Amino acid sequence: MMAKVKKPQKLKARLPRGFVDRTADDIRAVDDMIAKIKAVYEHHGFDPIETPAFEYTDCLGKFLPDTDRPNAGVFSLQDDDEQWMSLRYDLTAPLARHVAENINEVQMPFRTYRAGYVYRNEKPGPGRFRQFMQFDADTVGAPGVQADAEMCMMMADTMEALGIARGDYVIRVNNRKLLDGVMEEIGFGGDEHAEDRLTVLRAVDKLDKFGPEGVKLLLGAGRKDESGDFTKGAGLSDENAQKVLAFTEGKLDLDHDGQRELDTMQAIFDACGYGADRIKIDPSVVRGLEYYTGPVYEAELLFDVTNEKGEVVQFGSVGGGGRYDGLVKRYVGREVPATGFSMGVSRLMTALKNLGKLGNETVVAPVLVTVMDGDVDSLGHYQKMVQELRTAGVRAELYQGNWKKFGNQLKYADKRGCPLAIIQGSDEKEAGIVQIKDLIEGKRLSAEIEDNAAWRESRPAQVEVPLTEMVATVIKMLADQATDRAAN
Amino acid sequence: MMAKVKKPQKLKARLPRGFVDRTADDIRAVDDMIAKIKAVYEHHGFDPIETPAFEYTDCLGKFLPDTDRPNAGVFSLQDDDEQWMSLRYDLTAPLARHVAENINEVQMPFRTYRAGYVYRNEKPGPGRFRQFMQFDADTVGAPGVQADAEMCMMMADTMEALGIARGDYVIRVNNRKLLDGVMEEIGFGGDEHAEDRLTVLRAVDKLDKFGPEGVKLLLGAGRKDESGDFTKGAGLSDENAQKVLAFTEGKLDLDHDGQRELDTMQAIFDACGYGADRIKIDPSVVRGLEYYTGPVYEAELLFDVTNEKGEVVQFGSVGGGGRYDGLVKRYVGREVPATGFSMGVSRLMTALKNLGKLGNETVVAPVLVTVMDGDVDSLGHYQKMVQELRTAGVRAELYQGNWKKFGNQLKYADKRGCPLAIIQGSDEKEAGIVQIKDLIEGKRLSAEIEDNAAWRESRPAQVEVPLTEMVATVIKMLADQATDRAAN
Repeated sequence: MMAKVKKPQKLKARLPRGFVDRTADDIRAVDDMIAKIKAVYEHHGFDPIETPAFEYTDCLGKFLPDTDRPNAGVFSLQDDDEQWMSLRYDLTAPLARHVAENINEVQMPFRTYRAGYVYRNEKPGPGRFRQFMQFDADTVGAPGVQADAEMCMMMADTMEALGIARGDYVIRVNNRKLLDGVMEEIGFGGDEHAEDRLTVLRAVDKLDKFGPEGVKLLLGAGRKDESGDFTKGAGLSDENAQKVLAFTEGKLDLDHDGQRELDTMQAIFDACGYGADRIKIDPSVVRGLEYYTGPVYEAELLFDVTNEKGEVVQFGSVGGGGRYDGLVKRYVGREVPATGFSMGVSRLMTALKNLGKLGNETVVAPVLVTVMDGDVDSLGHYQKMVQELRTAGVRAELYQGNWKKFGNQLKYADKRGCPLAIIQGSDEKEAGIVQIKDLIEGKRLSAEIEDNAAWRESRPAQVEVPLTEMVATVIKMLADQATDRAAN
Repeated sequence: MMAKVKKPQKLKARLPRGFVDRTADDIRAVDDMIAKIKAVYEHHGFDPIETPAFEYTDCLGKFLPDTDRPNAGVFSLQDDDEQWMSLRYDLTAPLARHVAENINEVQMPFRTYRAGYVYRNEKPGPGRFRQFMQFDADTVGAPGVQADAEMCMMMADTMEALGIARGDYVIRVNNRKLLDGVMEEIGFGGDEHAEDRLTVLRAVDKLDKFGPEGVKLLLGAGRKDESGDFTKGAGLSDENAQKVLAFTEGKLDLDHDGQRELDTMQAIFDACGYGADRIKIDPSVVRGLEYYTGPVYEAELLFDVTNEKGEVVQFGSVGGGGRYDGLVKRYVGREVPATGFSMGVSRLMTALKNLGKLGNETVVAPVLVTVMDGDVDSLGHYQKMVQELRTAGVRAELYQGNWKKFGNQLKYADKRGCPLAIIQGSDEKEAGIVQIKDLIEGKRLSAEIEDNAAWRESRPAQVEVPLTEMVATVIKMLADQATDRAAN
């Protein structure tokens, strides 16, 4: 038994590091973006499924990008039966578990998409969160590379559906099988070298960031960054590191299954009219995950942005994926061929913001019915006015703060961006009239003093109408404002 | 250093108890429902905000419904700085934290809504999950009960927007202040009786479930259920238990602030035309949470359903809320008056399913382009056909499984509900024609043998057209199917 706890001091309101609240603008922009992506996937014949936040830890397995240890990087806790469960780290491992769990019911090829939060127990940083949204599409039970080709084309279509112009993006494609050949050559074949291979993958995956010189260090002894942090390398000899780099530069001549697969994909891209300006075979693409077994692909944005260090850089990857024929096998014992990709929703949002392509449709703030008298009768009467506006389709609200300071009500309306405020004191109530204040117009009037007179004539900032005409007048004034917005 | 782990046995694909995967139908129905609720809230002048899954455990505080212990009932883990964090248990505590954290920036009254998953570390049962969705609306910084009245009316509007007929629902309203008076009378006033009061609240909250007799046991020594499980009671004397029950039956005559607040709310309901068939003051409503400080309200569905025990019962509560003037105070030291409610999204879904009011618009499955030849040229050619259909706005896909067993392709199309299948063998390719199989019509033909001949005449189950007419023919056939669906 615990002793009675002392009454707590004032509690501190704060969020754990790496987690954030989201504002209305952000939520609406992401919703809009997700609706567009969803429309593309649906149109391509994909259907939604959703898995919960938790999985048993063993189902997440060793397929984590930045570590081979099963628990680091994920949020884990023990259930009351002592089994370890973890918050999902990505949306691929849960899909593999779902397919395996329902292997006899799932109709293959299984074409699905899903958007959802994933959780990473990592050190947060600028633009690096511990909860973020991914949007995935996968085809499970698809052995041929025509499925991979479809994914690449769907990624390209998605970019354009979001308003990213041709030339501002490219889908880059490679085949892990080719790299596997190089791994054999440098002596990194076999299960016992899984970790070494991962180190090589991660090194090559940083080509964009560090260039060939930096990657060469990561393939060799290691690399020290500007802050002095040292990243241990893969320990390759100069010659072997050079081989890997030559591969990424397309300088190896390969007669190989993997190459033939890429040729087939290229033929499909050609047949469907996806030129090299949209999808491009590129030997430098590897993807930093161990589990890929065939084609890998990546959506890259090509326009320049200024990073947090003030450097001008290419925006870079917003998503990618590849073929993973072995993930479901862990459960069912036989290969279940699959391919799919993941989009980083926040990354995409940032990209669209940079391009000015975020859904800019204004959500008009509510019409505010102000409160001049707080007695029971008046409250009912004001609320009824709100009611009538809403019934007529007008977004409206009653002022719910302390009504006694009328100035606060108008300040509220102003900060909230209310288009109109309705005002009715007791005299006006008796006379059966209301004042309707045009707050948008009012703002402009005070800004553009010069043609004050002209404006005042064309549209007064405040009108007085009979209560019976309130709804019609409000609708008319909102329509006028909408016309103005469209014109500007 | 751990020793090298043995190669694992086949992994078992399963989810932790109380968590489920969601199907396409369920996801689409919930999305549809949420869009309708959102439209109501937006129309009433509420805007979205979102908080993350995690909060620091102390921010969730002692405000949990089924326990006073801070950690039971929630999923908690220690961050690497040893602070405890928990998955959110509801959407109210995170909102209070958000407002407190941004107290100088938040424009009050702050009218917000948010839908999101909440997590409860409890024993799962039938219809009882450890992850489920809530949809909340709140006004923070609203001292007057007109804000509570608005919430009640918005709940009623939400019910009707979802297609629940007047008479099939009622919003029941009471005031916690009245019950507080009774608590004083029975000697349960003061901080030291917080837990006792919670026991009384929870007992009264079960009136629907156990009736006055059962509640009387819970107010007294305790109650044993059919399975033999014993719930300890509040330990009230017979006389005091009777007082509480008399209160819930409206038999206490109260001259009280709380009563005056309810009168004001009633006047607003009357003014706005919300009759007792939609919103009703009801002394038996208490809500099972400690933190309410004023009006409490609940949305109840009145139609009968058969429960898991085979008994016919009223559907009951689908959501509720109340005034909580003290939640933000824990952080900022002064009262920040607030009121709001929470809808249980799954409960509502089940209710709508029972009423046959779930979004029944069919999502038409994709047109399937089948594969007769798997050489590179053919794959490109088939994918191009898919491409042309998609470009024309038709949802379409290429068969991505093993193409060699053609029977599997048609079985897939059938199970998936594909409306049409496109077939082109090498001879047809040479002749520049395709076969379009009407799978819906085909199904009906085999079911309705009697007017087989008539149907075959009006619309053949398979047509052969030049490739150049494929897209137009598909569009025409889909339109015919849509006309049929609308007529049935």
